[in-house]
Amino acid sequence: MHNYQQRIAIDMDDVMADATGRFVEWIAERHGVVIERHQLRDEVLQTLGVPYAQLRKWLWEDGFFRYMQPMPDSQKVMQELVKKYEVFVVSAAVEFPQSLREKVDWLAEHFPFIDWRYIVLCGHKYMIQADYLIDDHEKNLIHFTGTPIIFTAPHNLHLQGYERVNNWAEIGERFL
Amino acid sequence: MHNYQQRIAIDMDDVMADATGRFVEWIAERHGVVIERHQLRDEVLQTLGVPYAQLRKWLWEDGFFRYMQPMPDSQKVMQELVKKYEVFVVSAAVEFPQSLREKVDWLAEHFPFIDWRYIVLCGHKYMIQADYLIDDHEKNLIHFTGTPIIFTAPHNLHLQGYERVNNWAEIGERFL
Repeated sequence: MHNYQQRIAIDMDDVMADATGRFVEWIAERHGVVIERHQLRDEVLQTLGVPYAQLRKWLWEDGFFRYMQPMPDSQKVMQELVKKYEVFVVSAAVEFPQSLREKVDWLAEHFPFIDWRYIVLCGHKYMIQADYLIDDHEKNLIHFTGTPIIFTAPHNLHLQGYERVNNWAEIGERFL
Repeated sequence: MHNYQQRIAIDMDDVMADATGRFVEWIAERHGVVIERHQLRDEVLQTLGVPYAQLRKWLWEDGFFRYMQPMPDSQKVMQELVKKYEVFVVSAAVEFPQSLREKVDWLAEHFPFIDWRYIVLCGHKYMIQADYLIDDHEKNLIHFTGTPIIFTAPHNLHLQGYERVNNWAEIGERFL
């Protein structure tokens, strides 16, 4: 435990891992519908005949989480962040039991410098004590007791009232 | 989130789940050595020719965690605890990637009334914000920011300086 360091909790899906890209990929493969990343919003998906309620089942499928791409610059910036801050990766993964091992394996592959002791697979996140939480979902940010920071994703563009980072380069500028 | 409730974090192995009993079972099955629960301490295991360093490999084997017995009275007391407190199950499971799903499945079988949002699979526990942590390992209790409570196990009998509960009946008396 490094009490002299500030602690940052960082979400996985759509922050470290490109969940949006994974949906776009499977929508193309499985439905033959090619969409842009910004179209991954239910109001658009409905009009394209691939409602999110249907896609959501993929979250319980083997391999969905394991083969996401790391977000651009995430590895490079994270490698610097962990030198300066105490970083916890915090993912609300327990809802998807098959994802748990996939997420740990994914982190070992793409972020091998993150020790297992700093990985948290959970449901709620409000009981995590940290100075910052970087997350794409308001449900996680709203009850967080430190400083919440929203990471831009197609589904949160409308959200106001949070400090916002649009990408990992901006996380680097903010924290490094 | 129920701010009016006190929050209790509760460990799994050797608190909710009988890890000691599981070791005793596998030592008998695999080494033909029958030991008593209180003998599961390295100084005793060494003399019996089954050093803990050897047994510890089982923690990475399929099925080790999945088929533990719930600790006596744990289900009954837990069912009352969750009515009165906000209970989080907090297990340092990420070291054993194959255990993650087994633990979630085990909880679904033996504690079906615990919602997935209240399950935390992690490494360190000191960043969990709670009023109490009930755990059998000093490494988890020592940096906890709430009130630490040690749950008696063969390996922690010597520990002083913590409030102690010896079994789930005592958890019930303490909290209900």
